Amino acid sequence: MTFALCVMECRKPGQSRYTTARSENDRVEILSGVFEGRTTGTPIGLLIRNTDQRSKDYARIKNLFRPGHADYTYQQKYGIRDYRGGGRSSSRETAVRVAAGAIAKKYLRERFGVHIRGYLAKLGPIAAMQLDWDEIGRNPFFFPDASRVDELKHYLDALRKDGDSVGARINVIAHSVPVGLGEPVFDRLDADIAHALMSINAVKGVEIGDGFACVEQRGSEHRDEIMQNGFASNRAGGTLGGISSGQDILASIALKPTSSIRTPGKTVDITGDPAVIETHGRHDPCVGIRAVPIAEAMLALVLMDHVLRDRGQNADVPRPLRER
Amino acid sequence: MTFALCVMECRKPGQSRYTTARSENDRVEILSGVFEGRTTGTPIGLLIRNTDQRSKDYARIKNLFRPGHADYTYQQKYGIRDYRGGGRSSSRETAVRVAAGAIAKKYLRERFGVHIRGYLAKLGPIAAMQLDWDEIGRNPFFFPDASRVDELKHYLDALRKDGDSVGARINVIAHSVPVGLGEPVFDRLDADIAHALMSINAVKGVEIGDGFACVEQRGSEHRDEIMQNGFASNRAGGTLGGISSGQDILASIALKPTSSIRTPGKTVDITGDPAVIETHGRHDPCVGIRAVPIAEAMLALVLMDHVLRDRGQNADVPRPLRER
Amino acid sequence: MTFALCVMECRKPGQSRYTTARSENDRVEILSGVFEGRTTGTPIGLLIRNTDQRSKDYARIKNLFRPGHADYTYQQKYGIRDYRGGGRSSSRETAVRVAAGAIAKKYLRERFGVHIRGYLAKLGPIAAMQLDWDEIGRNPFFFPDASRVDELKHYLDALRKDGDSVGARINVIAHSVPVGLGEPVFDRLDADIAHALMSINAVKGVEIGDGFACVEQRGSEHRDEIMQNGFASNRAGGTLGGISSGQDILASIALKPTSSIRTPGKTVDITGDPAVIETHGRHDPCVGIRAVPIAEAMLALVLMDHVLRDRGQNADVPRPLRER
Amino acid sequence: MTFALCVMECRKPGQSRYTTARSENDRVEILSGVFEGRTTGTPIGLLIRNTDQRSKDYARIKNLFRPGHADYTYQQKYGIRDYRGGGRSSSRETAVRVAAGAIAKKYLRERFGVHIRGYLAKLGPIAAMQLDWDEIGRNPFFFPDASRVDELKHYLDALRKDGDSVGARINVIAHSVPVGLGEPVFDRLDADIAHALMSINAVKGVEIGDGFACVEQRGSEHRDEIMQNGFASNRAGGTLGGISSGQDILASIALKPTSSIRTPGKTVDITGDPAVIETHGRHDPCVGIRAVPIAEAMLALVLMDHVLRDRGQNADVPRPLRER
Repeated sequence: MTFALCVMECRKPGQSRYTTARSENDRVEILSGVFEGRTTGTPIGLLIRNTDQRSKDYARIKNLFRPGHADYTYQQKYGIRDYRGGGRSSSRETAVRVAAGAIAKKYLRERFGVHIRGYLAKLGPIAAMQLDWDEIGRNPFFFPDASRVDELKHYLDALRKDGDSVGARINVIAHSVPVGLGEPVFDRLDADIAHALMSINAVKGVEIGDGFACVEQRGSEHRDEIMQNGFASNRAGGTLGGISSGQDILASIALKPTSSIRTPGKTVDITGDPAVIETHGRHDPCVGIRAVPIAEAMLALVLMDHVLRDRGQNADVPRPLRER
Repeated sequence: MTFALCVMECRKPGQSRYTTARSENDRVEILSGVFEGRTTGTPIGLLIRNTDQRSKDYARIKNLFRPGHADYTYQQKYGIRDYRGGGRSSSRETAVRVAAGAIAKKYLRERFGVHIRGYLAKLGPIAAMQLDWDEIGRNPFFFPDASRVDELKHYLDALRKDGDSVGARINVIAHSVPVGLGEPVFDRLDADIAHALMSINAVKGVEIGDGFACVEQRGSEHRDEIMQNGFASNRAGGTLGGISSGQDILASIALKPTSSIRTPGKTVDITGDPAVIETHGRHDPCVGIRAVPIAEAMLALVLMDHVLRDRGQNADVPRPLRER
Repeated sequence: MTFALCVMECRKPGQSRYTTARSENDRVEILSGVFEGRTTGTPIGLLIRNTDQRSKDYARIKNLFRPGHADYTYQQKYGIRDYRGGGRSSSRETAVRVAAGAIAKKYLRERFGVHIRGYLAKLGPIAAMQLDWDEIGRNPFFFPDASRVDELKHYLDALRKDGDSVGARINVIAHSVPVGLGEPVFDRLDADIAHALMSINAVKGVEIGDGFACVEQRGSEHRDEIMQNGFASNRAGGTLGGISSGQDILASIALKPTSSIRTPGKTVDITGDPAVIETHGRHDPCVGIRAVPIAEAMLALVLMDHVLRDRGQNADVPRPLRER
Repeated sequence: MTFALCVMECRKPGQSRYTTARSENDRVEILSGVFEGRTTGTPIGLLIRNTDQRSKDYARIKNLFRPGHADYTYQQKYGIRDYRGGGRSSSRETAVRVAAGAIAKKYLRERFGVHIRGYLAKLGPIAAMQLDWDEIGRNPFFFPDASRVDELKHYLDALRKDGDSVGARINVIAHSVPVGLGEPVFDRLDADIAHALMSINAVKGVEIGDGFACVEQRGSEHRDEIMQNGFASNRAGGTLGGISSGQDILASIALKPTSSIRTPGKTVDITGDPAVIETHGRHDPCVGIRAVPIAEAMLALVLMDHVLRDRGQNADVPRPLRER
């Protein structure tokens, strides 16, 4: 089961100067559900410990509501919050999603040939103009356009110097998806994908296929005509009526800029008094950079869930159910 | 319980020449859960019959997969489909969502003062430049900008003449939302809103707050600072860390153009042979026009679900639970 | 889809003088999910109207809490209750379970050869001493022992004369069950059966296999040994570790005596003042008699749920999922 | 949070010669959801490691299906099984239920004054004739009748000498339960209790209140009359119509005898060849003895679930929801 650890590498920060320097040692411990290298059919428990938490870093902000963070809402909802890095609202929480997604990706690939991959489509003003899948692994940004990587580096360096951050657009794609995934009305595949992707920290928008570009499209232009050898286009992004069509699933997300920046911001403390906050901790200038494997993982988990609904929870083993 | 019937009026087509001429008489029958004018706490069953279905209209398309429709995916998934208007994938299905949403809206308003309303923000190239809530009820488009209503009418007339359709953007807002709705990780309020809105027919994108505009925003610009009298802005759109902040919930959706148009389109029939399809039935040139009450209903249902989680299913009645 | 109406006959009261005289005309209307005689894969909606409700019968008890009924708990929980026959707590509610169960039984039988049947094992002091499946359809009690049917009739006549009622034990069996149904820990098949059967009105106990007789059994006696041609016995009742073993599922339930009897009983009214209640309406002297088809239906629904989990929701249609 | 460790003591075996000698060191590690001694409102993760697993003990039975165990069904369902102690079907799995139940018990007690306790009502032929709550803690059997403790010891010694085991009946009671817990139809409190208790390993029967004794009771005898100062009796066991009445919840379970005994039993191996099995490992002669805290835990978890539904997930903290 080393695949989990292997895939985890993708999310691990500290791999370049453009992501945080914390040595998050995302070691995954498999607690249950695996025996002699195979899944047993029973639930798989995964544990990732936070080994590099520096609680003292957070002492200063213990009584402050950081703008753009969940401090205020958690405090209001629960009357208590774990201020050491945000607790459940920390982006650390996504580590276990990537781990679970690694299992889903492996299952989908080996069993059905589904292949899921993503990339940084735009960071602030800098959009990828071409999609070179091979380039994605060559730069620390999951960026598919080699011609603009230098520009990206300079932009991020300037941003860091400014003590500021920026948003990003991530695209994620599933190839060779079985036709027929998704249920009518309540558990539409596109709705489940929207739920999964919007549940990622900092995501503020989700698109399937042409997304918001549809607003200005005409019906004669948008609807994907069907030829004898398949669909003539894929503006729908792989679902029709909430059910997968067998075309590639195309999803896109918008991530807000990191809220923890050096630029001072106004806030109040827990007693309601005004305060100014500057964050000097270890934070990425763009959380979007690291969101690619998280988005891939969430898409994989949704697809796996629907495959298991359609084919049964034990799709992977010969089933002894007798049929007449 | 006439409120349900009353609110239903909003979705009823045939109210102008810009929406389909079918006399969908959306009469709601309350089957259970209401006694002597009050809800009993047990499930409320609603039934809306389709009284104006003209099955013969659909005979021509019985064996064709209409491009942009769920015909192909339903047939592939189930091996059978109700071709008379699409069955579960028909936009008729949304009628009962509006009915259920009417109950949720009433409950939220009377119990917590939550007020939910929406409008057509953009139709094809025509965007509302100002937000005049009073104007929305004065035109048949839920459009908030009186200065562009004529332009909208001419655009739609031309579209109809062309036998074509167009997409739309709908904005929906909840005012006076309680702080603290939403659960960490799995049932974030924003994720549930994305799920609910993406589950509406023809929706291809969902935004919370600034949505995709975040991609180009800086952290110093995006994060909503907190003053002693509240938040200084609302770029987040009312949630922080997936939990409502008490600010207005702001959501936006993209709807694709109607796929059923007079313009001929290529497709295949159920045996795989090529075919050309033209739809001469009664269809809106922009499904987005009627989507406003549907989006309002879905937002109301999500908020009601979360209010009940937080306050208990019986938030509305005095509870006899003893406390120490 | 006449099978549903056909199976419903079983539960319809008024078929002998031993069950209530109300002409409950359990006509099932199929609202959705069926097209041209086949299920479409989308949800099946069933509606059974209560056509013989005599609300005036209940006016006398409007402000009284009937002992043994849900009047008190519904009033306490909700602050309102539908006193006309109990609303959701009425045994009328089970009609739709039988209708849904008819679909499940048909599916399980035709697809997997599963056969579900039940019988009245004991009524008050009168237990069946032999199990003759053919006899069950010949008497109005679902009783499998012809030699004691007369005794049963006299006992019930005397009970009615006394204005009293009595409890019953029902046994329900599923034959030819696929091995492997049930999930570890949370959704064990036996736990789901217990949930389903205990949810039937008036049920106070559930047994799987030998049930409470296990308390005095020894391990050497209870454990079902395994021979080359199968299990040597079936004390377990068809599940091991919460998963079906392929043996018959054996379940047994205890039903309390009807609470609505002519014998006066002490109670209080809604203001807390003491009152005496006598029920002169149309009530069975033993609710257990009519519980046989309900128990069969609930067992069928649980098994169908687990079959679909294991084989996918669309077990019934050829699935186009590609495999490598 | 030492309460969890404290309550865990109850289930820990090896405390007398009547339960297995394995030093199961049930140390609970709290992974999440607790901060500075208080719950944060986010999910509480608990981890109990199996520190004394002797896998070699199980090598002999690797290829055998132990009668009365889940070996056969897991192998059939999954095509693989963790033979080292049964994996998910091991009674070790109940340790974490007791840990979670400890939290639920503490919450229910401190917040609502609910008190949950249980006892061994019968072991084989030896039934408690009196219920002395103080006695339960004085003997290693959770047995409430001091006059029969010696008899119990001799019986168990003889059983061990015989290499055999026996079944048991456990009673569990919740005092001071709030009225109004439970939902109509689907999530009745009694049905949920039946589900929870039947999901415990080795449980074969569940009763609420008078349970199977109802079969021979008359309506005039069974129905609990209501006096001005409350119910005159509690044959119903604390629920009416599936909703708690405020009376004590009374539940009873039957546990089958331990299947792992020294007495040889017939079985087959994984290839279908006949085999004889004798279990010499560390096993209790009556699993029922240790089931008392497990049953208490499950009842507590069900009640807590329903309290949170009724009062909201955050019943414990001041809620900022504004009301008109």
